[in-house]
Amino acid sequence: MGKVLSTKPASGFRDFLGAESRKRSDLIRKIESVYRSFGFESLETPALENLEVLLGSGGQENEKLIFKTLKRGEKLERALEQKCSESDLSDLGLRFDLTVPLCRVVAEYSDKIPLPWKVFHFGPVWRAERPQKARYREFYQCDVDVIGTASQAAELEVIEALYGAFEACGVSSLELRLSDRRLLAACANAWGFGDRLGEFAIILDKKDKQDTEALAKELRELLGKALPRDLERALHEKVSLEEAVVWSQGAGESLFKLIEQLQDLSKAKYKVEFDLSLVRGMGYYTGVIFEWMQQGTDFALGGGGRYDDLTSRFMKRAQPAVGGSLGFERLLLLLESESESETNQPVFFPVMEESLRRSVTSVAREFQKRGLAVDLFVGEAKMKSQLKYASQKNYRWVVFLGEEELRTGKFKIKDFRSGDEKSFSSLEEAVEAVRRGAAA
Amino acid sequence: MGKVLSTKPASGFRDFLGAESRKRSDLIRKIESVYRSFGFESLETPALENLEVLLGSGGQENEKLIFKTLKRGEKLERALEQKCSESDLSDLGLRFDLTVPLCRVVAEYSDKIPLPWKVFHFGPVWRAERPQKARYREFYQCDVDVIGTASQAAELEVIEALYGAFEACGVSSLELRLSDRRLLAACANAWGFGDRLGEFAIILDKKDKQDTEALAKELRELLGKALPRDLERALHEKVSLEEAVVWSQGAGESLFKLIEQLQDLSKAKYKVEFDLSLVRGMGYYTGVIFEWMQQGTDFALGGGGRYDDLTSRFMKRAQPAVGGSLGFERLLLLLESESESETNQPVFFPVMEESLRRSVTSVAREFQKRGLAVDLFVGEAKMKSQLKYASQKNYRWVVFLGEEELRTGKFKIKDFRSGDEKSFSSLEEAVEAVRRGAAA
Repeated sequence: MGKVLSTKPASGFRDFLGAESRKRSDLIRKIESVYRSFGFESLETPALENLEVLLGSGGQENEKLIFKTLKRGEKLERALEQKCSESDLSDLGLRFDLTVPLCRVVAEYSDKIPLPWKVFHFGPVWRAERPQKARYREFYQCDVDVIGTASQAAELEVIEALYGAFEACGVSSLELRLSDRRLLAACANAWGFGDRLGEFAIILDKKDKQDTEALAKELRELLGKALPRDLERALHEKVSLEEAVVWSQGAGESLFKLIEQLQDLSKAKYKVEFDLSLVRGMGYYTGVIFEWMQQGTDFALGGGGRYDDLTSRFMKRAQPAVGGSLGFERLLLLLESESESETNQPVFFPVMEESLRRSVTSVAREFQKRGLAVDLFVGEAKMKSQLKYASQKNYRWVVFLGEEELRTGKFKIKDFRSGDEKSFSSLEEAVEAVRRGAAA
Repeated sequence: MGKVLSTKPASGFRDFLGAESRKRSDLIRKIESVYRSFGFESLETPALENLEVLLGSGGQENEKLIFKTLKRGEKLERALEQKCSESDLSDLGLRFDLTVPLCRVVAEYSDKIPLPWKVFHFGPVWRAERPQKARYREFYQCDVDVIGTASQAAELEVIEALYGAFEACGVSSLELRLSDRRLLAACANAWGFGDRLGEFAIILDKKDKQDTEALAKELRELLGKALPRDLERALHEKVSLEEAVVWSQGAGESLFKLIEQLQDLSKAKYKVEFDLSLVRGMGYYTGVIFEWMQQGTDFALGGGGRYDDLTSRFMKRAQPAVGGSLGFERLLLLLESESESETNQPVFFPVMEESLRRSVTSVAREFQKRGLAVDLFVGEAKMKSQLKYASQKNYRWVVFLGEEELRTGKFKIKDFRSGDEKSFSSLEEAVEAVRRGAAA
């Protein structure tokens, strides 16, 4: 009736069906279980926040990308009566990250939360990016944070929890790169960038994507003269933490201890490296920053850092904080396609004749009670169509229950992977065979 | 730092911390696992949809409650250049239910989805309700649907899957009330309501909340004369399906078979009842409708029905469909407070002196490797504060590792529930004791 509606998801958004959706929820569950094993508590916050909470949070570029919701009812009518501006029309916005809502929560429940608070916070975030390949307007974030302590034990805990998650996902060859915002600021200062630290950092942050000479040129233009020798070296060679500490007149001292502890804790399972060129985008970091790379690639699988001032927007005495997150969408791409879903695939029960549905259902329920997932065919269709359905779903086990089987209590099970068909004389035997086969 | 920001969630929205958040995620996981055991696949759709998808979907009242997002950039500027209306300003909206996005998905991927499609679809939905007690603007829905078959096997499967979820949550004394939209329409027609079926249904839907006499009065006013004797009876007494079939001249025939099959499948674990006064709010139902009640209460724990026409907005040949959902927020309230969270609580590791942190961490990791959750204290604080933290978190097990213990390889563990303190001479012994205790 009328025009045909587009059935695609809105531009920049995605639907996830079947195996893809399962892979996502398995991954979330896995990460959650690791964080819980480290004693982190979960937190859930709303998708929509008051705009004043989201704006001016140090989210910088991201703040421009907020999806704002229209006011409603009388408030909207009043705004529309005359020519109006954006800010007259909107009061709420979709969160663009999870850190800003976390800081609001820390302030709101400060009398109830035992500190230090070890917390993880998962959920989708939204950014009105210009749609382009592999850039989405809704994506999932998995944050883990320690709130309320200046102790480096917090950095250790967040980093170890993130590593625990990578390990549980089977990701190996990881490298942890660390630096410290105070160290970077002190170096930039010593090199003459003074109050242009922000611009300096933005240029340096492009190091992985740009040619070193192009970078040096940009920095020279910013500085208005030739670069100091130390900075030239830093651009072209790996600089040791010892050297950087000298350049920064001691600002990186505390990193020594952290890196030493991490090298000890990591037991060489991952590489720990100081990286003076590490910047990390967000403006709110105040101390240690870190990034997880997969060795031999140039993309980060996660990262984080200390942000001791961010809660000060919401409370008088700011709480020191360290947080990290892993790149959920990137991690998904790395995971092999054969996930748990395949070992826990449903056993298929076709229904040969409608008159047998009741009996077939009863048997299927018995399989379920014994811990197996089942898929009972719910349409009325010929056996050929039912088997086509099973093959489209890539099912391995099919239990044929005809009148003969139901009468004699026997089970005929076909393994579609091998093509074998076997008979079993009891339910327990049949269940056991599928369970063993499925686990093999 | 300017004015102090409000740190409350936006009006009508909620934060969930600690045990409450865990209870929610445990419940979601439990329901998901039941639906998977029935062979349903998962589906994830975006929070935001094109407005044209959401509007005119038969969502009726809910459509008025859509949170719409403002256009951005040039599009917004252009709209604001002159006096504009609501529809000029917005292109996307937050979904108000999960059924409309599901129908879009059925049409979009119709060439890839093997039918009948057994699918579950979870997630938050948003409605701009006027905030009031226990009415929220963001709440979680758990839908389960069978798409693509007119067979009553679909109704059976959805109802059984919902019951499976209730059962897994330990909810008992359930009653399933069923009716059929066609039956209700035929009765209303026979009683003279003709083209005022919608109004008739809205009045009848208030049956649980209103006095019968008030209802009868409203119906008399609508009809403009005294009510037919059969309707009077239906308002005051329980009407049998046999009678209703006679009144409706056969429209309820197919319900007989369904109810009979359900009585057989349910094995008396839940009550199955025909209820002529059942309406269910949404306009899109076309056949069987049902509602789960807890006996002795007057609120529904879930419900659903057949909606064979809803996909026709998106595709030429509509797919028949049956769906159901459970009241997630209500189910949460029913669940006892002691959830799995308590049995799987972290074991607490205080750090007596910072110099011992490394050693204590190693031991804690060994407990983790053996499947126990641990909480290593991450601040630098006196033992008294650390124990206060443990007691605020309601932890039961505390492992004391001082210099003495670390040197001798012994473990001193205190059970804060009983007050007992015990020593163990090996890690395995200590882990075993906690595991047994935690399971007791």
